[in-house]
Amino acid sequence: MTRVVQKYGGSSVATPMKLRRVARRIRESVGGGSEVVVVVSAMGDTTDELIALAHRITSDPPSREMDMLLSSGETITAPLLAMALHAAGTPAISLTGAQAGIRTSGAHRTARIVDIVPQRVLDELERGNVVVVAGFQGATEDMDVTTLGRGGSDTTAVALAVAIRADHCEIFTDVPGVHTADPRIVPNARVIAAIDYDEMLELASAGARVMHPRAVEIGEAYSMEIRVRSTFDNEPGTIIARQDKMEIRQKVRAIAHETDVAKVTILRVPDKPGVAAAVFGPFGDAGIDIDTVLQNVSHDGTTDLSFTIAESHLRKARRMLPSVAKSVQAQGYTATAGIAKVTVIGSGLRGTPGIYAKIFRALADSEINIQMIATGEIHVTCIIDRPRVRDAVRALHTAFELERI
Amino acid sequence: MTRVVQKYGGSSVATPMKLRRVARRIRESVGGGSEVVVVVSAMGDTTDELIALAHRITSDPPSREMDMLLSSGETITAPLLAMALHAAGTPAISLTGAQAGIRTSGAHRTARIVDIVPQRVLDELERGNVVVVAGFQGATEDMDVTTLGRGGSDTTAVALAVAIRADHCEIFTDVPGVHTADPRIVPNARVIAAIDYDEMLELASAGARVMHPRAVEIGEAYSMEIRVRSTFDNEPGTIIARQDKMEIRQKVRAIAHETDVAKVTILRVPDKPGVAAAVFGPFGDAGIDIDTVLQNVSHDGTTDLSFTIAESHLRKARRMLPSVAKSVQAQGYTATAGIAKVTVIGSGLRGTPGIYAKIFRALADSEINIQMIATGEIHVTCIIDRPRVRDAVRALHTAFELERI
Repeated sequence: MTRVVQKYGGSSVATPMKLRRVARRIRESVGGGSEVVVVVSAMGDTTDELIALAHRITSDPPSREMDMLLSSGETITAPLLAMALHAAGTPAISLTGAQAGIRTSGAHRTARIVDIVPQRVLDELERGNVVVVAGFQGATEDMDVTTLGRGGSDTTAVALAVAIRADHCEIFTDVPGVHTADPRIVPNARVIAAIDYDEMLELASAGARVMHPRAVEIGEAYSMEIRVRSTFDNEPGTIIARQDKMEIRQKVRAIAHETDVAKVTILRVPDKPGVAAAVFGPFGDAGIDIDTVLQNVSHDGTTDLSFTIAESHLRKARRMLPSVAKSVQAQGYTATAGIAKVTVIGSGLRGTPGIYAKIFRALADSEINIQMIATGEIHVTCIIDRPRVRDAVRALHTAFELERI
Repeated sequence: MTRVVQKYGGSSVATPMKLRRVARRIRESVGGGSEVVVVVSAMGDTTDELIALAHRITSDPPSREMDMLLSSGETITAPLLAMALHAAGTPAISLTGAQAGIRTSGAHRTARIVDIVPQRVLDELERGNVVVVAGFQGATEDMDVTTLGRGGSDTTAVALAVAIRADHCEIFTDVPGVHTADPRIVPNARVIAAIDYDEMLELASAGARVMHPRAVEIGEAYSMEIRVRSTFDNEPGTIIARQDKMEIRQKVRAIAHETDVAKVTILRVPDKPGVAAAVFGPFGDAGIDIDTVLQNVSHDGTTDLSFTIAESHLRKARRMLPSVAKSVQAQGYTATAGIAKVTVIGSGLRGTPGIYAKIFRALADSEINIQMIATGEIHVTCIIDRPRVRDAVRALHTAFELERI
């Protein structure tokens, strides 16, 4: 018998009608002979609504209490889906994260899964139930409720799949799988049939919203096959799994982009140890995530240190920059909004001569100016002006013929 | 140091603004030197909204899943109130019923509290926290979430007060206490300063909505003093406690009434053992609560068996009556809507000559016809036409001079 974990996101369970549709889909899996554990998110905008409610009470709610509050979103979806399954004639039972044995650290709002004790889940499967688990949440050793932060429900699903030794984990979403580029920008973008964990990690980190990198990391660590599929059709979607390294690899797999980007440069910093730490420490403490970092060779003992942050954090960053720049004896700083990031991803990328040139030529041919370049083992990221991002994605997608299988 | 449990009902916590007001009130208690445990209901109409949501999924949701769903109402209020307390500078922590150690039977939607293991609550008090407990809910031994049914949050509050050996339990509500009659009907009705558990039980059972009889029963069993007070002022309200039996008792304490009443009579039932059981069994199975029951002496070996039910159950009862009447070989039945119940309550009532006559004369003087009479140790209930209920309450309140102290 096949054992699967299926995760349905907030938009797939946003209304009673959608819940009934999801129930029918699960019923098909059960009818096909699978043991099914389902992980659900909060319905539609419930989480945002709960956050707004808390902010009507206080601008600075304690994170322990926020976790108690936010967890109720998923704790509402889970029994509703169990009811829909019952109504469809499929025995089902809902469990909170705590009841499902998901033990986490005590870092409220960004808790990490420490361990899963899946006995109750296994017992319920044994009894013939579909087990519907509230995603995004767990509990500490003291049974305090925690939430897992961004990508929480994906993380619950993959971790639970590992814990119950599922055959694979299916992430159901409102798109048909992982695309070679955002299909709203590139209409002939293809669904990628199979992709390696590393490539998927880069894609997710570089702006593809379909899955959260945290969950992919767990999949990679435990070799859990993840399938990204549409809630609304029966296509196979994208399989994320370890790919055979011996086969001839496609050099470029996908183009990702990110538009919520701003660029900060600390100008003419004395080039000595500890400068980067002195700059990034305060930003980290302020909850500002640093994305791409770039530091070029120094001239006259000084260098420019550039990095990108989410533009939504720019206002906060600007307030900190004068003192940060001063603390490292920099001569100044710039902070620029209206930036975008376009990233080319592929496992075979670095070992292939001429591929960098092809990327930069594609952008140059479209008269797109590259402000910064950062490369990694399997990705090349270019920072460009935001108004050109759609053209850049299209140009790169065409240059690497990603619309072809 | 005084230790109190305070319960705030749904209307007291219906909005963020009301939650902040409740937080200020709790802060005053803490400032006055009390250790405070707070029990909260779901905000405003949340529970009804959750029930409606479930019914959009299925007309017959499994009660275990309903409990999981409904418990989220209180699990939302508790952290919000804890946040409001934090914002007011009062350390606080929220706990679910399960976390507060409230262990119940497995009878979902009508669970009974089996035991309370209050260690976590006591630990948090020890740490200087106000402990905000989600009312109405508990958990079974298997950690399945249960709800306590009607009066659930009152029950949580009084039971928790007993478990942590609180000095007393305060039930905060939107009225200033227990009145001698509904003040919307009798404008000069008084707040009763002190009342015995038995009298309060009768009052609650006879239609006074201020507190649920279940919670009063627990108070009586463990001699826990209960104070019913207004959320919106600092008046002392009503103290429910064991009253000194030696003092000269006021004979009549209050007039209660109930308007959601219908009357059923099974006509000319053969007068033999087992008839009442045969009649009430099927109604109980159908979830129809039987209220006042009346059976008079028999003539010619048959008798009429009358009882009242909630008028909201009348439609269902009417469908069952033909077969029920047939099963006990009755000659027929009547089912009448538009009835009301008016009840006179007082501990000294039965031992006082002439008091029954005074009741019936007061109603007769107002030309109110009494359809049925039922009496108990400390109450006299009259079944009358619903349009006359306000007049009846006023006439009785005046006859016994309840507006005077």
